[in-house]
Amino acid sequence: MIRSLFFTPGKPIRTNISTEEFPRLIRDRKGILWLDFFGEAPENAEPILKSFGFHPLAIDDALQETHASKVDDWGDHLYIVFNILNYKNENGTFESEIDELDVFLGKNFVVTYHDQLLPAIEDAWVACQRDIRHIQDGPDHLLYRIVDALVMSYMPLIDQIDAQVDQIEDQVFDHPRSEVLEQIFGLKRLLLTMRRILLPQREVLNKLSRDDYRVIDPKDRIFFRDIYDHLVRLHDLNENLRDLIGGVLDTYLSVTNNRMNEIMKVLTIITTFFMPITFITGFFGMNFFEPVAHLIGWTSQQAFTVILAIMVGLPILMYFWMRGRTWL
Amino acid sequence: MIRSLFFTPGKPIRTNISTEEFPRLIRDRKGILWLDFFGEAPENAEPILKSFGFHPLAIDDALQETHASKVDDWGDHLYIVFNILNYKNENGTFESEIDELDVFLGKNFVVTYHDQLLPAIEDAWVACQRDIRHIQDGPDHLLYRIVDALVMSYMPLIDQIDAQVDQIEDQVFDHPRSEVLEQIFGLKRLLLTMRRILLPQREVLNKLSRDDYRVIDPKDRIFFRDIYDHLVRLHDLNENLRDLIGGVLDTYLSVTNNRMNEIMKVLTIITTFFMPITFITGFFGMNFFEPVAHLIGWTSQQAFTVILAIMVGLPILMYFWMRGRTWL
Amino acid sequence: MIRSLFFTPGKPIRTNISTEEFPRLIRDRKGILWLDFFGEAPENAEPILKSFGFHPLAIDDALQETHASKVDDWGDHLYIVFNILNYKNENGTFESEIDELDVFLGKNFVVTYHDQLLPAIEDAWVACQRDIRHIQDGPDHLLYRIVDALVMSYMPLIDQIDAQVDQIEDQVFDHPRSEVLEQIFGLKRLLLTMRRILLPQREVLNKLSRDDYRVIDPKDRIFFRDIYDHLVRLHDLNENLRDLIGGVLDTYLSVTNNRMNEIMKVLTIITTFFMPITFITGFFGMNFFEPVAHLIGWTSQQAFTVILAIMVGLPILMYFWMRGRTWL
Amino acid sequence: MIRSLFFTPGKPIRTNISTEEFPRLIRDRKGILWLDFFGEAPENAEPILKSFGFHPLAIDDALQETHASKVDDWGDHLYIVFNILNYKNENGTFESEIDELDVFLGKNFVVTYHDQLLPAIEDAWVACQRDIRHIQDGPDHLLYRIVDALVMSYMPLIDQIDAQVDQIEDQVFDHPRSEVLEQIFGLKRLLLTMRRILLPQREVLNKLSRDDYRVIDPKDRIFFRDIYDHLVRLHDLNENLRDLIGGVLDTYLSVTNNRMNEIMKVLTIITTFFMPITFITGFFGMNFFEPVAHLIGWTSQQAFTVILAIMVGLPILMYFWMRGRTWL
Amino acid sequence: MIRSLFFTPGKPIRTNISTEEFPRLIRDRKGILWLDFFGEAPENAEPILKSFGFHPLAIDDALQETHASKVDDWGDHLYIVFNILNYKNENGTFESEIDELDVFLGKNFVVTYHDQLLPAIEDAWVACQRDIRHIQDGPDHLLYRIVDALVMSYMPLIDQIDAQVDQIEDQVFDHPRSEVLEQIFGLKRLLLTMRRILLPQREVLNKLSRDDYRVIDPKDRIFFRDIYDHLVRLHDLNENLRDLIGGVLDTYLSVTNNRMNEIMKVLTIITTFFMPITFITGFFGMNFFEPVAHLIGWTSQQAFTVILAIMVGLPILMYFWMRGRTWL
Repeated sequence: MIRSLFFTPGKPIRTNISTEEFPRLIRDRKGILWLDFFGEAPENAEPILKSFGFHPLAIDDALQETHASKVDDWGDHLYIVFNILNYKNENGTFESEIDELDVFLGKNFVVTYHDQLLPAIEDAWVACQRDIRHIQDGPDHLLYRIVDALVMSYMPLIDQIDAQVDQIEDQVFDHPRSEVLEQIFGLKRLLLTMRRILLPQREVLNKLSRDDYRVIDPKDRIFFRDIYDHLVRLHDLNENLRDLIGGVLDTYLSVTNNRMNEIMKVLTIITTFFMPITFITGFFGMNFFEPVAHLIGWTSQQAFTVILAIMVGLPILMYFWMRGRTWL
Repeated sequence: MIRSLFFTPGKPIRTNISTEEFPRLIRDRKGILWLDFFGEAPENAEPILKSFGFHPLAIDDALQETHASKVDDWGDHLYIVFNILNYKNENGTFESEIDELDVFLGKNFVVTYHDQLLPAIEDAWVACQRDIRHIQDGPDHLLYRIVDALVMSYMPLIDQIDAQVDQIEDQVFDHPRSEVLEQIFGLKRLLLTMRRILLPQREVLNKLSRDDYRVIDPKDRIFFRDIYDHLVRLHDLNENLRDLIGGVLDTYLSVTNNRMNEIMKVLTIITTFFMPITFITGFFGMNFFEPVAHLIGWTSQQAFTVILAIMVGLPILMYFWMRGRTWL
Repeated sequence: MIRSLFFTPGKPIRTNISTEEFPRLIRDRKGILWLDFFGEAPENAEPILKSFGFHPLAIDDALQETHASKVDDWGDHLYIVFNILNYKNENGTFESEIDELDVFLGKNFVVTYHDQLLPAIEDAWVACQRDIRHIQDGPDHLLYRIVDALVMSYMPLIDQIDAQVDQIEDQVFDHPRSEVLEQIFGLKRLLLTMRRILLPQREVLNKLSRDDYRVIDPKDRIFFRDIYDHLVRLHDLNENLRDLIGGVLDTYLSVTNNRMNEIMKVLTIITTFFMPITFITGFFGMNFFEPVAHLIGWTSQQAFTVILAIMVGLPILMYFWMRGRTWL
Repeated sequence: MIRSLFFTPGKPIRTNISTEEFPRLIRDRKGILWLDFFGEAPENAEPILKSFGFHPLAIDDALQETHASKVDDWGDHLYIVFNILNYKNENGTFESEIDELDVFLGKNFVVTYHDQLLPAIEDAWVACQRDIRHIQDGPDHLLYRIVDALVMSYMPLIDQIDAQVDQIEDQVFDHPRSEVLEQIFGLKRLLLTMRRILLPQREVLNKLSRDDYRVIDPKDRIFFRDIYDHLVRLHDLNENLRDLIGGVLDTYLSVTNNRMNEIMKVLTIITTFFMPITFITGFFGMNFFEPVAHLIGWTSQQAFTVILAIMVGLPILMYFWMRGRTWL
Repeated sequence: MIRSLFFTPGKPIRTNISTEEFPRLIRDRKGILWLDFFGEAPENAEPILKSFGFHPLAIDDALQETHASKVDDWGDHLYIVFNILNYKNENGTFESEIDELDVFLGKNFVVTYHDQLLPAIEDAWVACQRDIRHIQDGPDHLLYRIVDALVMSYMPLIDQIDAQVDQIEDQVFDHPRSEVLEQIFGLKRLLLTMRRILLPQREVLNKLSRDDYRVIDPKDRIFFRDIYDHLVRLHDLNENLRDLIGGVLDTYLSVTNNRMNEIMKVLTIITTFFMPITFITGFFGMNFFEPVAHLIGWTSQQAFTVILAIMVGLPILMYFWMRGRTWL
């Protein structure tokens, strides 16, 4: 789908402009053009992008999914790639994939190209149609609004992850179950993916807020700086969550290791208690003692008392020996 | 609660100034105004902050809890965010949360905004009312006093953690109990949180002590430098404690692993001693040997002596075999 | 094999030039010479390279396999080393080795030297013969085409590894088998080798796209910059895969550790259930109880009922005790 | 204790100067004054230091133990903090604490402040009294002598640790005992403490040898550079020892893990050998076989031979099965 | 041993020059002097070095073994320390120690000082005597030849280690034996020692190839640059081998851990199979069942059939239960 929106001060906003008009409007310094390619096949988008005079390498990058945030300065326009983390949370299991938004930003136009539905784009589109204030500050300000919405949408995700980490932390000491392990590794992967998006995006925003680009009004840089600050904070929170989840994993492993020790201790204690006395019962169950007269003393009443004493006394002695070794 | 305090040289300190007067006083270059918002709802604070001409982005940041220390230079005033670690120590278990203090610092005013009770603010407030020396050196010096108190309050916490690490270290070699594990991971989390506060705060103080801000008297920079030195030291101590606690965790795991080995050795020794001889008792307990004449030799007096010899000799042989493998 | 290809504007492309002509053609500023040594013995190549006036240190480096990407600026020509990862995927097991491509790049010539068959070279060779567009933009552009093809050939490998990591991830939680371990360590080694190639190559391309070399047309730098961007992305993907595979290994170890715990628990439970009651059976199997009148009460009907009750009750009691310790 | 030492060229060295004279002598540009506070109470030292005109923040730092090496340039004097590792080696167990030496260095004076007895200070003090050559080169040279002695005193400690690491390494493969673990973690802690001292000290010496301080003669910088080189080397040795001790710990854990495996293998082999044949003995020990005619075939001579064959053959079969699984 | 070699253009090379002549020859700008101290006692070397006017700090460093590569610029001469890894390979076990070569390099002299026999020095000595081409290019070129030989001698060591790592890798999956562990840790230590030498050496060569030293001819810098490139490559190979050996250790630990799991599984399976049925045999071996009429039904033919069925059926049931838990 190709959508277009053209604003000239003092005139109503035009939409659904025909493809032929684009090259003219994009050179109309008085108006502001927003062109949005959404899920459009590359072969349809390419001729339009070429007619705008964008560099072939930039068009190539835009039409392919390249998944790496960057900003290229082509003088009269910027080519910017943003990545978007598209996630779903189903009963505590997160599924995520990385989408891409390509932007060509000029003095009086912004061209957005994306395959997936992006709420940030939709909201800005509707807002622009309803109220010219959203577009009259220029394409750079419009871009700021879109990217700000994109970035702020990670905040609830961070909160959800934070809550889940808290919940896992509580479980780990009380009932370390193997499902917890699956959740921990799921969160680790999600945070890794997120970090992969945040770091280069932060770099892009840093450039937009510091470098001197012809198409960005210097007094608008403060807004990109604001998004940069949010990205710094998101990255810090992400790093912090990664540290926390790493700590939770260590805790989990230590706690299960500990339980294992406890269990082995019990196994050893039980075996150590019963093996010797079971041997004694076996000894006196041998057929030597049964019919034969010459062994009669071994199965007398006195012998039985001694055996009973050993069977009771041995475990007691072993108990104190184990206490001495601080097993109990 | 909105508190205010206005000092003009040669006049008594005014407090409880009405909201309407603020915009005038904040522009009065001769006096020094301290305005403190404590737990005040954002909707009450916003119009006042706006009437001072602060930048909307800075006001937004102040009214939201953003938890990331930074300093923004808006020319005629600085916007600074400080984080405060709020901790409770209950029987060796630390609970902590991160609070925030927002500061607008001008040539002749300081505006503080915070949700929680901060002893550093309270002490400075009382001191200013009692003695004009605390405020007459200007808002930057007043800020120095508040931040210095904030930062110094971490020192006792570091000492408490240090003492607890020492105590855990002693326990680990003598009685490695699983509660120790819980304490270790608790301290790790606390130190991680602390580090998260110290690092950006250090950066902020570094900027305050080095950069050339219009609202900070160059000769006062040495004081911010002093706080910066303290933060460097706190961060070093924190890193050191993190290293120590990491070492304690390694020790704990190694020691319990070692004990596990000891226990398994005992289990194996016991099993290896008794399994073969128990088998022998079982062998001679079989009904073959009982009534049947054709096996009578197997249960004779001589056979019994041989069996006894094996039952005594086998464990002795095994004992020496195990010594040869350096198990004992 | 020594192949040569000489292009002069307006004339047909010459191939199979005799060795004697090289020194003259290489100085012919109007033409473009491409000389390709493929699997040629060093002793044959050396005199030719020397006749071109290349620095002896550079020729030494080219004739030996040195396996380290670098670019040396000798003023009128560049000496560049590229590494190529040569891999085979046999049923999920990757075998890889590092090949080398040495390039001497001048204003009007490019000399390539390699031991293995390189598809990127072959394709460029065929393309140049078919269509002069591939060579008329100068040797630097020709080099760009070759290196671009080299670098892009890693993309399918990355995709294969990615797919295999996904597949291993699924297996790990369901059936952690020891073959998985072999695959994990195989991929780790492959990614390590790949990283060793990508990092210095990236540095070389960075230099080619930024530094001011006499033999590279400044307006062609953007193409090397494009390859550099691809290498950055490949390196990011590699790092990401290394993180993922590291996570998979951690998962594998944690999951098998967990299973081990489960198994040990079962062993302990079985042993703890049966050891005590087996002892009781042994006790009443002793010959004390058989013929002798003075112990007749021990084997009465009542005693039997008590023993049966103990044999049934003890495991039940232990079951509840174990539940209390959250083993079950 | 407050000690003083005053040198004027051509005159005998004066000691035990009265407190009142200090402010005059410290301003006497012709002489060189060394004032040493050793274990002196802060309340006694403070007025003297103040009378010299040192900055209150520097005096505060000197009177408190702050444990962080640094150098502050106050123009006409430097304030320098050195840390000293105070260690005792008792039968291979090291005990260590961090002491502090504060120095005020001027054009013609050096003031040292420390709580503990420092051999480096004592030696320099005695040497100065005996021979004016040690003081006539100026306070900066005197400081060099003291710090050089301080730093060189770590060398024997490094050697001791080195020897102990060697000794532990030998033990680990032969007799991995749990006392070794205690020694390893003790050394790790000691090296960590040492590192904490060396790193900031190195930074301080780097500054002294590079920066342009008014009170340090440029031609004396080479001496501080020499100490800096020693600190670089000490730090390298420390890092290397930390790597080695880390490797020893890994070795220890791997070796004990290995032994554990061996032991478990033996346990499993013994159990696997004897459990089945013990079951068979139990089977034929059941009372079914004893008096009852209908089972008489089960306890015949032939049956006994078969049973004996199984009891001998089963372990032999298992032995080969285990070899097939490469357990033996 | 003190050896000397003096070259003046057009004259034969002089050797065995008397000690008294050195100070004169070292100032003879037309000749080139090489003085080699090999295993000479410091007390003999010191006066000679002093007579050359070298700085006392440099002489001190040369006479002591300091083991840290560095270059000190003393204007008319450089003082350079090189480290040499002296290794022996005995049946796959490497023994290594670090030797030292001290060099004083002037415009027309080079003084080498070393304790051990260094093949690189011997080869250069012999070559110089045989052919003046090796010395006529000046002392800096002579130094290049020596250091190049030193550095290239590590290449075969790297190859040996590489081969051994390959061999260990193969063993690890097939027969993880504890000797492998010893070899792994031996290689780790060797590579660590090597790295400790390579890193500072690389820094020294970097300085020699970049910095502007009075005693090094700018056009000779390219040669030191060549050695620097080799050191970079050696360091890369070393890092790579360290990564590989680290991976091999991880593999070893994972594989043995896996085998442990397998073994424990077998132990558990055996125990779980035989414990219950052995209990049953014990039960019916009790004396209750023997003579007493009131229990006669328990030992009937029917009972026996039921018991046999249980003894066969229970292991079969357990087998399927274990399969359900994916143990088998």
